[in-house]
Amino acid sequence: MNEKKGLVVVLSGFSGAGKGTIMKHLMSTYPGAYHLSISATTRPMRTGERDGREYFFKTREEFDRMIEEGAFLEYATFNGNSYGTPREYVSKLTAEGKDVILEIEVQGALQVRNIFPDALLLFVTPPSAAELKKRLVARGTETDEVISQRLSISVGESELMDKYDYLVVNDRLEDAVRHVHAIIQSEHAATRRNAELINDIHKQLEEFRKEQI
Amino acid sequence: MNEKKGLVVVLSGFSGAGKGTIMKHLMSTYPGAYHLSISATTRPMRTGERDGREYFFKTREEFDRMIEEGAFLEYATFNGNSYGTPREYVSKLTAEGKDVILEIEVQGALQVRNIFPDALLLFVTPPSAAELKKRLVARGTETDEVISQRLSISVGESELMDKYDYLVVNDRLEDAVRHVHAIIQSEHAATRRNAELINDIHKQLEEFRKEQI
Repeated sequence: MNEKKGLVVVLSGFSGAGKGTIMKHLMSTYPGAYHLSISATTRPMRTGERDGREYFFKTREEFDRMIEEGAFLEYATFNGNSYGTPREYVSKLTAEGKDVILEIEVQGALQVRNIFPDALLLFVTPPSAAELKKRLVARGTETDEVISQRLSISVGESELMDKYDYLVVNDRLEDAVRHVHAIIQSEHAATRRNAELINDIHKQLEEFRKEQI
Repeated sequence: MNEKKGLVVVLSGFSGAGKGTIMKHLMSTYPGAYHLSISATTRPMRTGERDGREYFFKTREEFDRMIEEGAFLEYATFNGNSYGTPREYVSKLTAEGKDVILEIEVQGALQVRNIFPDALLLFVTPPSAAELKKRLVARGTETDEVISQRLSISVGESELMDKYDYLVVNDRLEDAVRHVHAIIQSEHAATRRNAELINDIHKQLEEFRKEQI
């Protein structure tokens, strides 16, 4: 609200909790309000993808050099492909006053918090674990093994939920989307993010008082 | 959002910042969402007032006894009349899951925080000190002395602004009202207020995993 600098917002959540859908609707419901971080990846570009839109496509050598240079806020490897959030891209956007949203998993989220202690961490969850299980199973396409594996990951994630600032309980989609928006907007008004405004008001009031005396 | 217990919300702000107007519009815009704390006072009842509606009217003896019993969350004396926030009334409402709003000045706000560390403290301010001065002067009915005195109080208040959780910049009234609502609703989703839900989800996920193995 009064903050010139944009926020780094991290959105994580259980698989099946609806992160992606929330993100999509957040972007379309509040056009221009938020910017998505674009990750770098070593995975090959697919048909229809464009460099700098879906991902920044990098060779393994380029990616490893970026790691060495500390160019990533966080990175991780899945199935042999590496994915990372370029620090410079995020810093550039926030410096322009833009709120940047990073959709990343819990370990990455904690890495981001180490680099940006002021990052806002949101965790998306269904209203209950029973509902989470139902959603995982309802996808229909997964084997018991995959579901079991996902449950294991979810257990680990649930142990880190309290490292996040806010829960987003995804019961009704439109409520969850509105809620994410409200949390981010409110966060701009946190006093710790407005030290400059507070200081300005204080100094100006002091001056007015002197004029009156 | 998932919190059974209501929040204790403290609203303070500069004289002339529009606290009262925000409160009035908050109550009418979101009917039933919030409850106002009713203060006890030793000041005599005026025509049209009713005990337990505007205030709980108390004799000096009753009021002093309540102080001794620790019955007040905070109290203060202005022009010989004492005003206090009854702790029991607030606790009863929050136990029922109701968010209770206390409109009190800064010293009282800090007393409340001592008793309820989880209280949510909001500070209403005009967008700038210049605007604050303009609003103080624009009331028209005050002498230079009164304005000067208010400025002095405001200086003191500005020194305590950073003890609050959020600033509410009152530029456009309807924005400020919506903003207060968003802050309170978001606050319910803070992870530190949802330890029980987090723990439930974690335990249930553990059980599901065991069932699968």
